[in-house]
Amino acid sequence: MKFKADRTTLLKALAHIQSVAEKRNTIPILANVLIQAQGARLTLTATDMEIAIVEEVTASVTRDGATTAPASVLFEIVRKLGGDTEIELDQSGGDAPLALRAGRYATSLNVLAVDDFPSMTAGQLPHRFHIDAGVLRGLIDRSRFAISTEETRYYLNGIYLHVAKGDTGEMLRAVATDGHRLARVETELPAGASGMPGVIVPRKTVAEIRKLLDEAPEKVEVALSETRIQFTVGTVMLTSKLIDGTFPEYERVIPRDNDKILRVGKRDFADAVARVSAISQERSRPVKLSLEKHLLTLSAASPDQGTAKEELDDGTVSYEAGPIEIGFQARYLNDITDQIEKDVEFAFSDSSAPTVVRDVDSPSALYVLMPMRV
Amino acid sequence: MKFKADRTTLLKALAHIQSVAEKRNTIPILANVLIQAQGARLTLTATDMEIAIVEEVTASVTRDGATTAPASVLFEIVRKLGGDTEIELDQSGGDAPLALRAGRYATSLNVLAVDDFPSMTAGQLPHRFHIDAGVLRGLIDRSRFAISTEETRYYLNGIYLHVAKGDTGEMLRAVATDGHRLARVETELPAGASGMPGVIVPRKTVAEIRKLLDEAPEKVEVALSETRIQFTVGTVMLTSKLIDGTFPEYERVIPRDNDKILRVGKRDFADAVARVSAISQERSRPVKLSLEKHLLTLSAASPDQGTAKEELDDGTVSYEAGPIEIGFQARYLNDITDQIEKDVEFAFSDSSAPTVVRDVDSPSALYVLMPMRV
Repeated sequence: MKFKADRTTLLKALAHIQSVAEKRNTIPILANVLIQAQGARLTLTATDMEIAIVEEVTASVTRDGATTAPASVLFEIVRKLGGDTEIELDQSGGDAPLALRAGRYATSLNVLAVDDFPSMTAGQLPHRFHIDAGVLRGLIDRSRFAISTEETRYYLNGIYLHVAKGDTGEMLRAVATDGHRLARVETELPAGASGMPGVIVPRKTVAEIRKLLDEAPEKVEVALSETRIQFTVGTVMLTSKLIDGTFPEYERVIPRDNDKILRVGKRDFADAVARVSAISQERSRPVKLSLEKHLLTLSAASPDQGTAKEELDDGTVSYEAGPIEIGFQARYLNDITDQIEKDVEFAFSDSSAPTVVRDVDSPSALYVLMPMRV
Repeated sequence: MKFKADRTTLLKALAHIQSVAEKRNTIPILANVLIQAQGARLTLTATDMEIAIVEEVTASVTRDGATTAPASVLFEIVRKLGGDTEIELDQSGGDAPLALRAGRYATSLNVLAVDDFPSMTAGQLPHRFHIDAGVLRGLIDRSRFAISTEETRYYLNGIYLHVAKGDTGEMLRAVATDGHRLARVETELPAGASGMPGVIVPRKTVAEIRKLLDEAPEKVEVALSETRIQFTVGTVMLTSKLIDGTFPEYERVIPRDNDKILRVGKRDFADAVARVSAISQERSRPVKLSLEKHLLTLSAASPDQGTAKEELDDGTVSYEAGPIEIGFQARYLNDITDQIEKDVEFAFSDSSAPTVVRDVDSPSALYVLMPMRV
């Protein structure tokens, strides 16, 4: 195998690749990138056995071949080469070292046998659709913060992607919950997605695909089966196992009859939450919302430090219902308001019942938040 | 005590204050800031019993008085208030809470008795001089990286500031060493510094004074005794205990006769070190410098990953002496080159002897580096 490639191209691909490659190094070859050169094409592959990433880049190949070398070392070297240099890679087959040359810099990297590189097969992927990269980004960003990190509840360790009946027909929905809050985001069902099974996309896969979406072309292809999902983003293909579990029937926890409606400017609300919660360094302490007509008072207390409160009135608050006092973890409020554009709507029932939160300007997202005793 | 102060002014002062205040909270009052209001002046004080910081700010005081409140909470609140608001603080004496108001935000902070706030006295400071803030910054930046972190060698846990005979008469010198490398930086002796004792300024004090120097006026006042040092930077006064120990006779470890001289562009050299050391993730592995006439070859090896090398030739390298091979820890080389402007000069003896490093354009700094076996 021998080829020359442009540093910038190689660096971009290796950044994706090394992110997926296994770092803990329990199985050495999982730390490696599989490099295959053929024709004018270079294929780079990494896998941690849960996720596989395959990326194609153009290169001027003078001898076809393949090898595997440490992904993170290769990434670091290419990163530090700097500028827009041309990089030559040369490996004479078998376990001969991989030589990398750029200007007067040369390295010789130990390789591992290509045959030992595990292939993660996707199998048949009967469901296939295209989705706007921006729309997929929105589904992920507005739901991923609610993914549970409790490993015992493995079926909550991802985003539940599925088809559901919405107000305007079938929708593609992303749902995540950790039992304290729930995020439900939906979009029009893409052509081809009808009939797809509901799948739970693991947290790491969500993170990897999200990174790719930052530089994605307009459309992304999604293909899936009961056990695998595959995203094609330009020249990158990410294949992942799915979480083998049953996502809870989340619709049951979404209250339908909450009728105490508060609307408040997101910026004013988020700033006030930050200020009153600054009284306590304990992240889990609640912020209390006290409501009466056209007036929202946020308050927090710390036994050690003291108390804080802030009033928001009808300059930014609209509230017509009866008085209520209810408490939430400050960071749970932040996670939701971070996703909201301009105005946030809370629908309360009472101080111990789940609260529904919406983005006033974007009906496609709905959040449920459990209150805390205050 | 009651006063109004401008948020920006208060925030800047509290940033300095909370940095010195004790965070571990074993003695609760050390986490507090002492606030004293008198006339049109506010004095803020914090101490961890090793360092004390006192800062004066202007405020419109309507009732004189004093109290102590949690420094980091107060800092966080003022930070999050945002904008250029006016903040009112009000405390009615004794252990009454401290009320802070800004717009519709109000907090009530628990206080601790002013009488319990420890005063760290400086005592008599017979030596006193003024020094250019930029010069002091240079002394610190070019020596602090070599401060030892080994707690058992407590006398190396700071910068040794003293008067020494230089080539052009008496100089003010800053020296730090951890046994592997040594940094010696000097400047003209400021008027008033002659006759001062050699003192070891602790690492934390170095860090705090360095932060203040970023926004310092042109001149800084330094006053000291055998046991205390005090820096006055504008309206901030930082007083610190000194390390009670004897700094080693460092001049003995500076080689005088190293005659193999390498000069190399700092940028080219630092980049090459970064690239060849990328082969190994172990931070302590050496980079080998192999020298022959007008040619420097840098190389590194990792048993797991492979080898890397890079050649620098007479485009950037000037070397006339005989061949030598010598190894250094990459990060020790980086720490020194980070402080060098343009060209670096190495003076070698042999591959196991200390090497002298200098900034070609700045004779006021000298570094000594112990080689590693390669």
